[in-house]
Amino acid sequence: MVEKNGESIVIPSAVIKRLPKYHRNLESLLDKGVERISSREFGKIAGVSAPQLRQDLNHFGNFGQQGYGYNVENLYNALSKIMGIEKKSNMVLVGVGNIGQALVNSTDFTKRGFYLSAIFDINPRLVGIKINGLEVKDVSQLENYITEHKIKIGVIAVPEKAAQEIANKMVRAGIQGIWNFAPVDLKCPQEIKIENEHLTEGLLRLSFKIDE
Amino acid sequence: MVEKNGESIVIPSAVIKRLPKYHRNLESLLDKGVERISSREFGKIAGVSAPQLRQDLNHFGNFGQQGYGYNVENLYNALSKIMGIEKKSNMVLVGVGNIGQALVNSTDFTKRGFYLSAIFDINPRLVGIKINGLEVKDVSQLENYITEHKIKIGVIAVPEKAAQEIANKMVRAGIQGIWNFAPVDLKCPQEIKIENEHLTEGLLRLSFKIDE
Repeated sequence: MVEKNGESIVIPSAVIKRLPKYHRNLESLLDKGVERISSREFGKIAGVSAPQLRQDLNHFGNFGQQGYGYNVENLYNALSKIMGIEKKSNMVLVGVGNIGQALVNSTDFTKRGFYLSAIFDINPRLVGIKINGLEVKDVSQLENYITEHKIKIGVIAVPEKAAQEIANKMVRAGIQGIWNFAPVDLKCPQEIKIENEHLTEGLLRLSFKIDE
Repeated sequence: MVEKNGESIVIPSAVIKRLPKYHRNLESLLDKGVERISSREFGKIAGVSAPQLRQDLNHFGNFGQQGYGYNVENLYNALSKIMGIEKKSNMVLVGVGNIGQALVNSTDFTKRGFYLSAIFDINPRLVGIKINGLEVKDVSQLENYITEHKIKIGVIAVPEKAAQEIANKMVRAGIQGIWNFAPVDLKCPQEIKIENEHLTEGLLRLSFKIDE
């Protein structure tokens, strides 16, 4: 739910899906020094029609001005706020295998206000080593850590078979959202938000499109 | 386009999106030794209604039998064929940074018939080293390699700024599909199929859902 003019409104999930893209597009416009942009031009960059773009953004307030378009910086800041980016979010990650290490080493998330405050693994040979300055903790400490530090987001980068158990631990400890890289559909209480990154599915879709 | 009863039919993109999930679900059913499953049960696992599932699968042929349901192995094999998995697909990857290395080290793709036959980077310090048995080649060899080996799928795991140039090289060399991990929307001729993995977008969506 989002507040608009003092009222709570529900944003359609299709709109939510497009927001990060708009945000990214605005970021590169800012990088290029673009100060304002029409809904037609912006829509072209984002791959949606101008009316679609205006309708999407109208869910959150009146950003555009007729004859002027959008102020890139204002809209970028507004979307950052809407998406909860300006608040710093601390995350924990479990599983420092290939994908896990790539995530720990990435700067893409920190740029957007997301920080890994602790990383965990079950493998005793990995516990204690440092990756990008973070020491790998034993997964037995996971629940306490989440509860103590009021962590909202848990990243799961463990193999398929271990994923549900890690999710259960996270949920018990009070996590609010799970970013899941394991190729499995987690079963969690409805109030837990889950975002899946099933990478292989993207490759399968690509293969299918090529063969069509 | 897919052939069904000798006719070419167009499959809705929403159906295509769900196929890899069905395929993955069937794979875990097979692993568990499940031989047959009703559309109701299968739909429950896949998170769609039974009528939706039946309608989706009917696009490709008549797999289910009333009163029996689906034979898990037959359906798995049929979907593998439809998705082009049974044919071995060779891919090239450019960019052996964090995500690139994770992809090179992953076994998830090979299990599904996708093989990296060569990997490339622009960094001379990385050229020549071996990752998971594959020697990193100089990116100047990319176009020749794709053309010579008739590579259909190119994986882009380079930073944002380098991605479009790599895509252009791939397209010139005759690539058919690009699996793109760079946080940028590539501009390619319409006939080139593109599947984006914009990881940070998933995290932003999660953050938004938590804050709703």
